[in-house]
Amino acid sequence: MSAIDPLGYEKAREFDAADPLRVFREQFVITDPELIYLDGNSLGRLPRATVEQMNKTVQSEWGERLVRGWGEGWFEAANRIGNKIGQLIGAATDEVILADSTSVNLFKLGMAALSARPGRRTILTDDLNFPSDLYILQGIARLGGDYTVRVIPSSDGIHGPVEAIIAAIDENTALVALSHTVFKSGYTYDMTAITSTAHQHGALTLWDLSHSAGSVRVDLNGAAADLAVGCTYKYLNGGPGAPAFLFVRRDLQTELINPISGWIGQHEPFDFALDYAPAMGIQHFLTGTPPILSLSAVEPGVDLLLEAGMERLRDRSVRLSEYFLELWDAQLAPLGFRLNSPRDPAQRGSHISLGHDEGLPINLALIHDMKVLPDFRRPDNIRIGIAPLYNTFTDLHQAVERLREVVTRGLYQRYETAGLKVT
Amino acid sequence: MSAIDPLGYEKAREFDAADPLRVFREQFVITDPELIYLDGNSLGRLPRATVEQMNKTVQSEWGERLVRGWGEGWFEAANRIGNKIGQLIGAATDEVILADSTSVNLFKLGMAALSARPGRRTILTDDLNFPSDLYILQGIARLGGDYTVRVIPSSDGIHGPVEAIIAAIDENTALVALSHTVFKSGYTYDMTAITSTAHQHGALTLWDLSHSAGSVRVDLNGAAADLAVGCTYKYLNGGPGAPAFLFVRRDLQTELINPISGWIGQHEPFDFALDYAPAMGIQHFLTGTPPILSLSAVEPGVDLLLEAGMERLRDRSVRLSEYFLELWDAQLAPLGFRLNSPRDPAQRGSHISLGHDEGLPINLALIHDMKVLPDFRRPDNIRIGIAPLYNTFTDLHQAVERLREVVTRGLYQRYETAGLKVT
Repeated sequence: MSAIDPLGYEKAREFDAADPLRVFREQFVITDPELIYLDGNSLGRLPRATVEQMNKTVQSEWGERLVRGWGEGWFEAANRIGNKIGQLIGAATDEVILADSTSVNLFKLGMAALSARPGRRTILTDDLNFPSDLYILQGIARLGGDYTVRVIPSSDGIHGPVEAIIAAIDENTALVALSHTVFKSGYTYDMTAITSTAHQHGALTLWDLSHSAGSVRVDLNGAAADLAVGCTYKYLNGGPGAPAFLFVRRDLQTELINPISGWIGQHEPFDFALDYAPAMGIQHFLTGTPPILSLSAVEPGVDLLLEAGMERLRDRSVRLSEYFLELWDAQLAPLGFRLNSPRDPAQRGSHISLGHDEGLPINLALIHDMKVLPDFRRPDNIRIGIAPLYNTFTDLHQAVERLREVVTRGLYQRYETAGLKVT
Repeated sequence: MSAIDPLGYEKAREFDAADPLRVFREQFVITDPELIYLDGNSLGRLPRATVEQMNKTVQSEWGERLVRGWGEGWFEAANRIGNKIGQLIGAATDEVILADSTSVNLFKLGMAALSARPGRRTILTDDLNFPSDLYILQGIARLGGDYTVRVIPSSDGIHGPVEAIIAAIDENTALVALSHTVFKSGYTYDMTAITSTAHQHGALTLWDLSHSAGSVRVDLNGAAADLAVGCTYKYLNGGPGAPAFLFVRRDLQTELINPISGWIGQHEPFDFALDYAPAMGIQHFLTGTPPILSLSAVEPGVDLLLEAGMERLRDRSVRLSEYFLELWDAQLAPLGFRLNSPRDPAQRGSHISLGHDEGLPINLALIHDMKVLPDFRRPDNIRIGIAPLYNTFTDLHQAVERLREVVTRGLYQRYETAGLKVT
């Protein structure tokens, strides 16, 4: 027998068969085995257990227990699930809670941070940050008065401008707000280095973990991070638009003040006192009544991550990603695909962006003709999301085959002028 | 045959049989026919159609269509459902949208209103307003600088201090923010009178419709109202903590600025531009990615209300409420039950508060021993929520029977020192 081609399909099957986490894929609803889903960095797949959870929440809890549900677990859900997420990101108990959307949480913690650093007038961020984060920071700066949002540019659009950020942090910096893993290139910051510099100058840090939670090692307390937010619908598989989480380091929880002071963050909500008095601890960063159906759906996905273990998941993410890059190097680079993500896995999340002059039409051909679902971010990024709970080596092998086919057979050409709207 | 007792059970059955809206009760999941649910003013019942809707959203959309769901209806859901709610509250198309929680929306519209009325330093409200609304207004005043939240007291804790509010509105008033129907007594403001005085003095109005939407006639445009918010989980039956709605009158939509400026309110969210530019119209009051599972659950309940028709529902609500008050007058008042709601139906929402010296223990006995589910609001209010889509005359008749029994048989006494927490 001849040696198996290390880039061949058989080898991919072998890798899959040998992988200790392969069984987790079976925990997800997969209705179309032909579809290669590479957009778990945008919306994670539906866990099987979530289907049951939703039936329970809708029918047994809402339908049967009605308003009594609030006393039978609904009120605690934001804390309980928050604490589970905390275990995935290096937070202690009662430092993480589910609330609102990532953007609203960023607003709350950002405003709170500025108030906690009076006299300082600069908010530092970079141009790789997710635009919504920049918009929120701009809003905060406008509300707060004469603040400047300083957007440090990346030199190559791929790597975070670490040195420039570190050089820019000074005694006028109130807040450094960054995406830990950035949405286009997947570049992942060294949280400790930035935080430590920020602290030397008395500034606070606010990390958006939307693309990090469940994909890379995050150790908030190890890095002495101050504040963080993140969504639950990407690698945590919480469902479309699922409630976000927020982290406030314990010793900051009394110092910081939630600007959107609603009744669920009140000391005793059911006293119905006329004046606001904040609840103790992380609770006071809540505002309104939480959306229980969407909130309940978050838990089963998080449970799967805890069961698999973040260390093992990260290892698998790196194995899958490195394998994909081997394929890219050998089979896609010659067809004009550029690597728009860091080559070093230590600087990369769990998605890889491939640039191509025909990026948008190629992406459309993949979706509409080839049963491959990545997503596309302008100007030229085809984002390949590699979710270590359910993506496989064979997924990636087949995706590369189909990517090649789209280019070599010119299948993308009919989309060159299609003007289809891609989300 | 003797005449049927107008307060007897047979008469209640007769009223039910004759009611044109009786069939709507069958559209709800009712697992325990013995339970008399009178808390639809806190959490509305589960519509049967919502069970199907949730299966569809979870399994067919999220599970099968995955991220493609965003292009196949998820993004439009907030507008579509918002427009339907708009029909129930006298708003025009594209004046209402679903977003966030009631408290977050109140914050957004309240902040926007203050910015639109520079130089004016007073926010007017009353002490019957829901505490979360007061907390949010206090937060806004703190953030904005030297604002005063002036809380006009009700003289009897039941009726809104209309004359005092009207007298207090002046050239320094930026915003009048009130619950249209107040949470304890159910008192309902004359929206036109307050709004018209506010406008004479150049102030804006912000109405919380949480206890009004689906229970009373609301005509936002008829009253020339400026801004409104409301929840969808009470009479709209949207599910626990379901996303809230907000209303901005069309001509104010460009003038007012959403302070929590996130990507879903951005002009072209998928351009990922680095600088915020608001979307046109009501869209720009959105902030983050909406929680689709909770959002989808709102629609079937709203559809039922539209099908029944707000006029007919209100008529039924009044018929049921007046019937309940007849029973109260004859059978409960002699047992020490006080009416803590307005007697005039034109001033009352769809819930009635009964006061009693033993209010809390009576409420506990009702819940734990008598299969009646009202709720309780301090100091002494047993709130009887009358949801015209599913509550019946026999519900109310039986509830009164059981209320009597709790008092005449002294069943409440074991709860006098129970210290049980009631939500």
